[in-house]
Amino acid sequence: MNSMALLVQKFGGTSVGSLDRIRAVADLVKKTVEAGHRVVVVVSAMSGETDRLLHMASQIMPQPDEREVDVLLSSGERVTIALLAMALQAQGLAARSFTGRQVGIVTDGLHTKAQITRIAADRVREALAEGIIPVVAGFQGINEQSDVTTLGRGGSDLTAVALAAALKADRCVIYTDVDGVYTADPNVVPNARRLRKVSYEEMLEFASLGAKVLQTRSVTFAAKYRVPIEVKSSFREGEGTLVTQEDQDMERVLVSGVTGDRHQAKLTVVGVPDNPGIAARLFGPVADAAIVVDMIIQNISQDSLTDISFTVPRSDLPRALGLVRDIAKSIGARAVEVKEDIAKVSLVGVGMRSHSGVAAKMFEVLADEGINILMISTSEIKISCVIEEKYLELAMRSLHDAFELSRDNGGLS
Amino acid sequence: MNSMALLVQKFGGTSVGSLDRIRAVADLVKKTVEAGHRVVVVVSAMSGETDRLLHMASQIMPQPDEREVDVLLSSGERVTIALLAMALQAQGLAARSFTGRQVGIVTDGLHTKAQITRIAADRVREALAEGIIPVVAGFQGINEQSDVTTLGRGGSDLTAVALAAALKADRCVIYTDVDGVYTADPNVVPNARRLRKVSYEEMLEFASLGAKVLQTRSVTFAAKYRVPIEVKSSFREGEGTLVTQEDQDMERVLVSGVTGDRHQAKLTVVGVPDNPGIAARLFGPVADAAIVVDMIIQNISQDSLTDISFTVPRSDLPRALGLVRDIAKSIGARAVEVKEDIAKVSLVGVGMRSHSGVAAKMFEVLADEGINILMISTSEIKISCVIEEKYLELAMRSLHDAFELSRDNGGLS
Repeated sequence: MNSMALLVQKFGGTSVGSLDRIRAVADLVKKTVEAGHRVVVVVSAMSGETDRLLHMASQIMPQPDEREVDVLLSSGERVTIALLAMALQAQGLAARSFTGRQVGIVTDGLHTKAQITRIAADRVREALAEGIIPVVAGFQGINEQSDVTTLGRGGSDLTAVALAAALKADRCVIYTDVDGVYTADPNVVPNARRLRKVSYEEMLEFASLGAKVLQTRSVTFAAKYRVPIEVKSSFREGEGTLVTQEDQDMERVLVSGVTGDRHQAKLTVVGVPDNPGIAARLFGPVADAAIVVDMIIQNISQDSLTDISFTVPRSDLPRALGLVRDIAKSIGARAVEVKEDIAKVSLVGVGMRSHSGVAAKMFEVLADEGINILMISTSEIKISCVIEEKYLELAMRSLHDAFELSRDNGGLS
Repeated sequence: MNSMALLVQKFGGTSVGSLDRIRAVADLVKKTVEAGHRVVVVVSAMSGETDRLLHMASQIMPQPDEREVDVLLSSGERVTIALLAMALQAQGLAARSFTGRQVGIVTDGLHTKAQITRIAADRVREALAEGIIPVVAGFQGINEQSDVTTLGRGGSDLTAVALAAALKADRCVIYTDVDGVYTADPNVVPNARRLRKVSYEEMLEFASLGAKVLQTRSVTFAAKYRVPIEVKSSFREGEGTLVTQEDQDMERVLVSGVTGDRHQAKLTVVGVPDNPGIAARLFGPVADAAIVVDMIIQNISQDSLTDISFTVPRSDLPRALGLVRDIAKSIGARAVEVKEDIAKVSLVGVGMRSHSGVAAKMFEVLADEGINILMISTSEIKISCVIEEKYLELAMRSLHDAFELSRDNGGLS
């Protein structure tokens, strides 16, 4: 890090969940400033506040108007920006709060899950030029009608990354309750190791595979504008994980991490007449119902009949099953089978691009443990296998050991 | 009231203090709409919320930055406008929330006690034209720097009155926890009567004499723009008190009400050399210290020495006494005497303008009860007497009886 860097520091709900925590954040910002850096702070609502507000709304109306939900929720960050600005001032620092509107965060009109379309950030730049620490409300913006919008889950991270991009900040530091990205979930794999550095693409795979550290949207945004993100703990001092552009060091490591996901269910449409366009007739209505299909496997056709298996989020299974049963009947398929007790184990690593043999080794490791593979899907930097749920922990630990993920591979990943 | 009137309905903190209360407000608004009126609703923060937020701020910093206090406090009305808009929608009504900024309430820059300088209200007019009920955040506006400001004590009333003026509304209805303005405090005078109608000027005198129903600022604003205000209960159905322009009916009534005020203390500077400019030397520094002097009495000079008595708010007495002792010494006065156990009893009525004899009768009533008058001050529509505090209730009851205030004087006042 430069000695005089511009940093965006983002603190989530638990990091500002009490007055003591807000004071601790002010201490942390002060240390950063004393180390010679310029800082822009982005904060979420105090933890619990969003749920409290949503609970009130749901008591008034089961499906409240989303424009009004946004007005309601946006009150939460106003409280934290004001209190944190005060806490910084109490530390003798010049600080000033800004709402999403005041920062000029303009979004589309999709209330409760708006997309950022542009950021002016003039007042943030002015404050920085005056030596004032801007304290910015995350999660919120305004649409073209000048109504407040919110950015949905992980929205404060997105505010921080987008603001870092707009300000051409040297780094966006996301403070959270974990101290970085791990080679595996430490609750499952006790010798999991914190990664010092991962590429945006790896982080995207981790995020889409269920790692809760960063949302896909923020990582995509950071990758597009090449904003280095550091994920670190707001509760403990020390290094975190740097999410940044892929470099040669990263490629020398075959596999960066292993993930497990229990939130899928498998559907198989048995005995489908193997005609052109049959997949479209099957998956079109499923997509229209906003059900995300993850893996799809079509068996080799026998006697002009084929089986099509695919996975959907387990929470969408009842809806998906209803739809798929109707479609199966209409296309003349024989039956629909469901398997819920499945899990997906995945290996992620940019090194796979230039090294072959990872998949073969993965299948071998699982076979050695007697774990049957139900489905396989691969991408350039990821291999996923669907297995029976009861084997998930065993699969993760075996793969973690086999690929020596607890070893710091030359300090590069 | 016209059959198709435009009404601004304002609900204070206790009126929206719970989800049940918010639903009750929605019911009340619905009834008004069903009666054929168009309605703009103005609401405060839920009762207790402002204190909760201020308490947090004070734990961070004893004297928090007022700009940030305004950001903090303005979150409160965002919650109520969103919840009330939802509650109206739940009733099947079209409703939309607007913040002070969205209504275009522009103020000066004096944070925590800003003055309204102009109101655009374009979005409120648009909503009305579309048949949508605007739900407006009271108490807040923005300054020329586009920072949020708050209007201080009674600020939501001011928002309602100012908005009614900008929209040329037929009436501004202030819903509160009392059902109107009384001839006297019913806790002191059990047969006190609710006034059906009072003039702006009388209301101003009542407000400045300690009646808590409406703040002076809102009444001044209403008088300037001739906005009729109705004060009524949000908890009970029925008539309230209409505050409006003086009319001939009002003048036929000598006295509209009697008020008591215990929050004053009396200072007497004894043996002041009676030179020109001595009053300026005494009261200049007191005014500079922002201590409001209410009554001043200077005795007739004897041997070129005079006594000057005046009253100050009891809460300012320690500061005032320190100042006045220093000044007394410097101007060669003999001593400073203090009397704290005083109270002020006042009669208010526009009828005094055209009728003499009210003062004489007041003095006679007090004398008959053996109550000594320590100071007297009069204005066109008010007579105040400072008496010993222990006689205040007796004085109020006797005056209320003597001027027959419990009798509805022809249904006019």
